[in-house]
Amino acid sequence: MSQCVARLRTNYEGIARSSSLLLEAIGTAYDRIEAERDRNCWIYLRPRQEALEECHKLVARARTGENLPLLGIPFGVKDNIDVAGMPTTAACPAFSYTPWHSAHSVERLTAAGAICLGKTNLDQFATGLSGVRSPHGPCASVADARYVAGGSSSGSAVAVAAGHVAFALGTDTGGSGRIPAGFNNIVGIKPTVGLVSSRGLVPNCPTIDCVSVFCNTVSDGEAILDIIEGFDFEDPYSRLPRTFFPANGAAASFRFGRVAPADLECFGMSECGELYESACERLAHIGGTAIEVDFAPFRQAGELMFSGPWVAERHSAIASLIDVESGALLDVTRTVLGSAAGYSAIDTFGAIHRLHRLRRDAEAIFAGIDALVVPTAPRPFTLEEMHRDPITLNNRLGYYSYFANLLDLCGVAVPNTKLPNGMPMGVTLLAPAWHDRALIGLARRFEAGADGSAFELKSGG
Amino acid sequence: MSQCVARLRTNYEGIARSSSLLLEAIGTAYDRIEAERDRNCWIYLRPRQEALEECHKLVARARTGENLPLLGIPFGVKDNIDVAGMPTTAACPAFSYTPWHSAHSVERLTAAGAICLGKTNLDQFATGLSGVRSPHGPCASVADARYVAGGSSSGSAVAVAAGHVAFALGTDTGGSGRIPAGFNNIVGIKPTVGLVSSRGLVPNCPTIDCVSVFCNTVSDGEAILDIIEGFDFEDPYSRLPRTFFPANGAAASFRFGRVAPADLECFGMSECGELYESACERLAHIGGTAIEVDFAPFRQAGELMFSGPWVAERHSAIASLIDVESGALLDVTRTVLGSAAGYSAIDTFGAIHRLHRLRRDAEAIFAGIDALVVPTAPRPFTLEEMHRDPITLNNRLGYYSYFANLLDLCGVAVPNTKLPNGMPMGVTLLAPAWHDRALIGLARRFEAGADGSAFELKSGG
Repeated sequence: MSQCVARLRTNYEGIARSSSLLLEAIGTAYDRIEAERDRNCWIYLRPRQEALEECHKLVARARTGENLPLLGIPFGVKDNIDVAGMPTTAACPAFSYTPWHSAHSVERLTAAGAICLGKTNLDQFATGLSGVRSPHGPCASVADARYVAGGSSSGSAVAVAAGHVAFALGTDTGGSGRIPAGFNNIVGIKPTVGLVSSRGLVPNCPTIDCVSVFCNTVSDGEAILDIIEGFDFEDPYSRLPRTFFPANGAAASFRFGRVAPADLECFGMSECGELYESACERLAHIGGTAIEVDFAPFRQAGELMFSGPWVAERHSAIASLIDVESGALLDVTRTVLGSAAGYSAIDTFGAIHRLHRLRRDAEAIFAGIDALVVPTAPRPFTLEEMHRDPITLNNRLGYYSYFANLLDLCGVAVPNTKLPNGMPMGVTLLAPAWHDRALIGLARRFEAGADGSAFELKSGG
Repeated sequence: MSQCVARLRTNYEGIARSSSLLLEAIGTAYDRIEAERDRNCWIYLRPRQEALEECHKLVARARTGENLPLLGIPFGVKDNIDVAGMPTTAACPAFSYTPWHSAHSVERLTAAGAICLGKTNLDQFATGLSGVRSPHGPCASVADARYVAGGSSSGSAVAVAAGHVAFALGTDTGGSGRIPAGFNNIVGIKPTVGLVSSRGLVPNCPTIDCVSVFCNTVSDGEAILDIIEGFDFEDPYSRLPRTFFPANGAAASFRFGRVAPADLECFGMSECGELYESACERLAHIGGTAIEVDFAPFRQAGELMFSGPWVAERHSAIASLIDVESGALLDVTRTVLGSAAGYSAIDTFGAIHRLHRLRRDAEAIFAGIDALVVPTAPRPFTLEEMHRDPITLNNRLGYYSYFANLLDLCGVAVPNTKLPNGMPMGVTLLAPAWHDRALIGLARRFEAGADGSAFELKSGG
């Protein structure tokens, strides 16, 4: 289904005339989903007949002249985002409720003619970066079933990479919209916090939560962002931009920040560093000048995220929904949330003040570059490794992602290349808040600069 | 010294030619300060000879054609703001240090030719709204020595109201730049947090601290704001505005929010409610339409400030400077800071989330009005009353001021009228962040609409 979103947006009128193609695509998606139940990527699947009937109705509406830019495009929704009439569980069956209203972002997509096929698996309450913390079973990478898919939006990433849907919504608080894109060789757009309404999300860390998009190409992601972005007064975390930064696709040359080779952290898998070098070479090849930046402010902000008081933000939000001490949560979720009790209000304000200074340090770095490129994750881990040491390895996965939301950055995770064993490893481009469009323009150029091999794992068509 | 700042700004070239007038004004200021030591409004006074010599030098520079818009204007600085070469104590002698550099705002003022005469008294570490929490003695209102001057910027307000200086800098975290303006019948400008650099301030609650201005007229305050405002990268709390809102002085009619008569809280002094009604009448007289607004979101945000986790922000900032448990602090300061230990990180994030919702409620209210008018303080208290119950009465003083910084508002406290006993009571106009100029325009019209009696307490000339 690569690039089908963007293609449909330009050709939907023609497609609307031949509704059988649309119905066939929906049917094919269901066939594939049903044949691949063992991927564990779906928690709830909408009845096939219902989706087909909706498709029929949408085609009829399009024929009356209604503008439905995403007509008939099947998509998935991470199960911590409300879809009207489908249970929301956040991968915690005891928490299940069936909302009357869809999340604002989902409403926008269905109003544009897209068809939601169901709710996707995740690390429980979006607490994790591995994709294995779910009572519905772990998700493995579509490239190699020994490795974790990454999380917390594991099911959304796998559903896109496996060709079940054209795109899927995820969420991102500390990397959940990027890590699983990297391990499944697809694109993950993590918008500026507050650009897309978070109304209808199960809260995690509300001040830094955002809706993210998984898709096959950067252009697909931009087409989806066009539909879902915009200020929403009813969402207390929705923000109006200070300044709009236009897409900067025309500038032939640009400067990108990179981690110095000596500072690269691969947690024992040095070949991952080589993949990062090849991404930097590709950026240079398409007109970029590499600038080695001081990674310390980013690393330190990441440390605040995984070993600082923001776990208490998570606890505060989740405890307002479910008894954290009861048996309803997975042990690992309860253990993580339990660490919140170790932080005081004084600690919290101290950390907030420190974060303000780190934001300034990051701003000073971004004043000299158009984007920062980092490995999406430092290295992959196998399901077995992750089960043996679920907390330490989880934190390692976030080394290059945790800091982004706290530092108020936007990001695009893009496929890069593969390890010798075939496992894909992406890179993520990052820029300050509201630079989403400029970043997407750069990510599109990076994508276009790839040799074919980087994409050979793509499923679907 | 009423309106002398604004007048000097337009006439300073003429005055620069007759330097004797400037020197005479400085000398008169020192005479008055020395005659009124019992006002307790100064902690440190610059040697008279030094100030006179600086004035000489500034006049010589002005004669070369240098632009010094505040040439020779004497001002005071609250002693939690650095002035190079003068001790900063925050009214805690054990904390004293002498900075090499002035605060950013002070630097701007002295670069414009203003002359700092010294450092003014305050509630210790800016923790209080009464002006009595200082080892240098309490400040009383210039109008009636039985009543508190208000704080925490007590000395700055008294120094201006008593005619010691033309204007003074204060700070405002929960009303410290407004309450003492109200009790001394002068103007207090509380800018949007981040509009004026807070570099060089002794931190209190850094995320909501701001520099404030005490002066005799709204125009004076605007002239000072012109000099000190502006983004400062080196201050992590300095902000760039999302949008600039122009002054709206030309619009003949406007809408102002007011507290419903039934909701007015005067803590037992009902005549204060009558003064508020007269302010609303004055606003109607100059073209305003009164809209009764729901005060609940403002009251609730105020409660978060005085009985919520922000005291831990104060503790976090002050404990980084001095041992809070040692004997260096006043008992009342230590008691207030001690309450910080009762709040957890989970409480803090819960309160931050609640604040996000309250901000939206306030935004909805401000969408229908140009400004909200509130009593600057609900009622005055005597020094004796304040000593008997220093914490409860202090919190009552903040009923109409605490919420402003948490809700990201700007404010202008202006003189209103007097109680039968002669004690002045001001009102405060409030608007969302970055509406400072529009608010100043409205405050100027309110000021112009006064009958003469409201200003009869003014000292100096």
